[in-house]
Amino acid sequence: MSTDQPVPSFPTSLGTSEGTTITLLGQDLARDLMGNVSFGELAYWLITLQRPTPQQTRLFETVLLGLADHGFTPTAIAARLTYLSAPDAIQGALAAGILGGGSRFLGVTEDTGRFLAGVLQAAGPLPADDEGWDALAVRAVADCMGVDGTGAGRFVPGLGHPVHKEGDPRTPRIIGIAREEGLYGPHLALFEAIGRVHPQVLGKRLPLNGAGVSGAALADLGLPLELLRGVVLLARCAGLLGHIAEEIRRPIANSIYMTVDRHAEYIPPIPNGPDAT
Amino acid sequence: MSTDQPVPSFPTSLGTSEGTTITLLGQDLARDLMGNVSFGELAYWLITLQRPTPQQTRLFETVLLGLADHGFTPTAIAARLTYLSAPDAIQGALAAGILGGGSRFLGVTEDTGRFLAGVLQAAGPLPADDEGWDALAVRAVADCMGVDGTGAGRFVPGLGHPVHKEGDPRTPRIIGIAREEGLYGPHLALFEAIGRVHPQVLGKRLPLNGAGVSGAALADLGLPLELLRGVVLLARCAGLLGHIAEEIRRPIANSIYMTVDRHAEYIPPIPNGPDAT
Amino acid sequence: MSTDQPVPSFPTSLGTSEGTTITLLGQDLARDLMGNVSFGELAYWLITLQRPTPQQTRLFETVLLGLADHGFTPTAIAARLTYLSAPDAIQGALAAGILGGGSRFLGVTEDTGRFLAGVLQAAGPLPADDEGWDALAVRAVADCMGVDGTGAGRFVPGLGHPVHKEGDPRTPRIIGIAREEGLYGPHLALFEAIGRVHPQVLGKRLPLNGAGVSGAALADLGLPLELLRGVVLLARCAGLLGHIAEEIRRPIANSIYMTVDRHAEYIPPIPNGPDAT
Amino acid sequence: MSTDQPVPSFPTSLGTSEGTTITLLGQDLARDLMGNVSFGELAYWLITLQRPTPQQTRLFETVLLGLADHGFTPTAIAARLTYLSAPDAIQGALAAGILGGGSRFLGVTEDTGRFLAGVLQAAGPLPADDEGWDALAVRAVADCMGVDGTGAGRFVPGLGHPVHKEGDPRTPRIIGIAREEGLYGPHLALFEAIGRVHPQVLGKRLPLNGAGVSGAALADLGLPLELLRGVVLLARCAGLLGHIAEEIRRPIANSIYMTVDRHAEYIPPIPNGPDAT
Repeated sequence: MSTDQPVPSFPTSLGTSEGTTITLLGQDLARDLMGNVSFGELAYWLITLQRPTPQQTRLFETVLLGLADHGFTPTAIAARLTYLSAPDAIQGALAAGILGGGSRFLGVTEDTGRFLAGVLQAAGPLPADDEGWDALAVRAVADCMGVDGTGAGRFVPGLGHPVHKEGDPRTPRIIGIAREEGLYGPHLALFEAIGRVHPQVLGKRLPLNGAGVSGAALADLGLPLELLRGVVLLARCAGLLGHIAEEIRRPIANSIYMTVDRHAEYIPPIPNGPDAT
Repeated sequence: MSTDQPVPSFPTSLGTSEGTTITLLGQDLARDLMGNVSFGELAYWLITLQRPTPQQTRLFETVLLGLADHGFTPTAIAARLTYLSAPDAIQGALAAGILGGGSRFLGVTEDTGRFLAGVLQAAGPLPADDEGWDALAVRAVADCMGVDGTGAGRFVPGLGHPVHKEGDPRTPRIIGIAREEGLYGPHLALFEAIGRVHPQVLGKRLPLNGAGVSGAALADLGLPLELLRGVVLLARCAGLLGHIAEEIRRPIANSIYMTVDRHAEYIPPIPNGPDAT
Repeated sequence: MSTDQPVPSFPTSLGTSEGTTITLLGQDLARDLMGNVSFGELAYWLITLQRPTPQQTRLFETVLLGLADHGFTPTAIAARLTYLSAPDAIQGALAAGILGGGSRFLGVTEDTGRFLAGVLQAAGPLPADDEGWDALAVRAVADCMGVDGTGAGRFVPGLGHPVHKEGDPRTPRIIGIAREEGLYGPHLALFEAIGRVHPQVLGKRLPLNGAGVSGAALADLGLPLELLRGVVLLARCAGLLGHIAEEIRRPIANSIYMTVDRHAEYIPPIPNGPDAT
Repeated sequence: MSTDQPVPSFPTSLGTSEGTTITLLGQDLARDLMGNVSFGELAYWLITLQRPTPQQTRLFETVLLGLADHGFTPTAIAARLTYLSAPDAIQGALAAGILGGGSRFLGVTEDTGRFLAGVLQAAGPLPADDEGWDALAVRAVADCMGVDGTGAGRFVPGLGHPVHKEGDPRTPRIIGIAREEGLYGPHLALFEAIGRVHPQVLGKRLPLNGAGVSGAALADLGLPLELLRGVVLLARCAGLLGHIAEEIRRPIANSIYMTVDRHAEYIPPIPNGPDAT
């Protein structure tokens, strides 16, 4: 269907180049950005089109550091196995690791940011004091957990951790830096209130985890909620490169693969049996 | 084949966690790294297991900035089209963009680093002066281009640019910062010498491009050559998030798709014809 | 945390091998499957652990054919652009195409299958005649569209097509083959009833699209609903290989990229402006 | 740089659609292909633009069956771990599995096809008898292994297998079907000759593996060498869907992850130590 219809223009505010200059975000890349702006600052700027203040950059980079690596996560193992299979295409190993950035392991940051933002939006004017925050938090937790028959029986995002049962060390650190930098906002306030009041509703105390507090901090920083998972993936990208570099120096992926294979147990499928779909 | 063989241990020097602490790179993540270390610094550290100096961090981040975005590259377009198709899985859009990090568009940095390192390794003791560097560079370019019947007729990596014919503005900037920070080493020296002498061999002057000088600078920083493409992908990750964020704010992927579809021209396959394989 | 805890066994009913035999799905791969079983038959068997009848295989392969390619879709363009960037890693180009298999373009098959299965499950005993099906379909469409204030105002999956406004030719073909092969079941019956009655609720007639009828047919075949999108991706895999092969023979990805780049329009970001997030 | 330059047309011979018809490969999709053509036949046709004969289809599908699954390969484990992390995006799990289709585990088929094609092209006229084939095979193996100082000391692709030391059962099956169907050509002849003569050069007997014979058979079928890895990926796509379906029915990925994590051994990085890069 070749036609003479005009082609639309494709607008962008990111990068463009001509002759001897490159423009990025309206700045002269080589003169104004390179050498003067940190990588974390640029990432924030690219995502929001707003240049962060030094305070915002520090909080943003603090969050990135907290999310960069967690040892042998499923995503790190997947990246190493993919590197083992295809060492000539490092981009594939990195992409395989990033593809684990879904709802279960890396999604908590975005889930928490969205949950807090939803509660705040529904609540109207912000509470004036801790009592007000606590009351709002009790309602939020109860609604989420399905107390009073109104909720969906869902877990409260950002609450609980399989290892850090007594407290995730990233949580007070991020809250502390947000306060230091004057960036403690309503999402963090609500998240802290949930940390105080949830035992009233749940009947037990769970830690506020680092992924969740990261979501609260990023939301207070004004990052778009749809991009919170993307921010986690940027952080994780550094950790995955660390795993791939380590896999090159001291490989373990083949040993993981052999361990699985050696412990494989073959169960013949039973035709029409209970195992079949 | 279930067996009782013992499972090997899986060593790592990256992250581990227990109870109330998280260790990353032998440091206390929350106390020592978060809030104190920039994201670029951490990425360098994760890849090399060496904490960079402030000078190394600045040069490393300068390189990341120069590589983060180049407007509507094939990788950025692929990420936007994937986001259009699967907006619920941002990790897929990011991964699709990263998968374009192959030999043709994003591989120049690694190719240049490897080429320079190979020439230096074969050359033995480093030249003592500019004349020595120029002589080494002439031989390197001639070998690469196949002059004297010895080479493979390949392009010299890092030389030439489709847009920046008069000079890529990133090149002097990176060289300048490497000098400022005392990190100007043999890879950059050889690359600059190639910039001076190549017209003698090629018969025309080409610019030293930004991707190439990035490879030289990263090699002088001591990053492992196998990871140079990975560093480019980390930089590009920020740019891709910028494109995805822009696609959410002001979508164009559907318009790109419609443009291609509207200009599609259907050519029936000729059985056994010249077009067939 | 190296421990002496025993490693669990990892059960599988797919493939295993030893010495001179390979077992797949409880069969001798070389003797019983290779040469005797079609690829589509094997795929069905791998997904369900049930060997399909020849009738089931024919309907399953018919659905795969209908979903294999649709010309210049966003996924095909993304695969071609990725091949352009990284021609040395064909697995990356294929993966990039597959990553577009999300909610918007390739998700209709699964959405339709799930929607129909949900309606059937809630309905209890199946209707005895066309009148019964029509009544059930009216309720399903009304609930879905939000008529009577009960629904969510969602589109009915499988209804409507941007090109095939007068009818998608795949729809009667799939229904016809399902009838021929004795595999016309409740999902297809409900889908056809929706095709008859929806104008009563919507006030206009829309075609039953091919992706939707595929979902109904796959559900009638007994494929697990969670895998319907996976079946579409298998079909699309063949189409993507066709696009990559064509890109090798007669490249267009660079021309697509240049078209986008040439029509790029740079809009400087306005600090704190309406465009910013 | 918005311009008035005309947009080029984008030619394709795959799919197009209008009104009530869909054309694929010059055929009416719904009328001529769906219900009449197997999925394997369509895949061959999409890749080559040539409709395969029933004989070619049978050999092609036989090869696909032999490559579809091999139990707990690194790619299957990577796909399962990715599904564990991101169960809402099955396309990501499938893509992660495909990304392992690189040089080491899934590349043998393409490597073998390319190697055989290279030897045949260099050899000129085909040998007339087994003696001639054996002589050609001896030279090919010797050149590849670096005997006489001429080679690169590389392994001969397609030779050897970690499990099937006494013989890969797929090899005689594929050769047998190629003979039955009249499709036994020079690539298979050379591969079989290599199987006969290689002990003369290597000093030990290795089996001809199934991945290698698949490359020879696909090359004899006339598939483009650049697409052989793509064919393996199509086959593996079915196996990966089998693993994902099994992961849904009877999950093991979390148990694999916990096994690795439980056997992690933390080794603090030694600054400037031997472990560092």
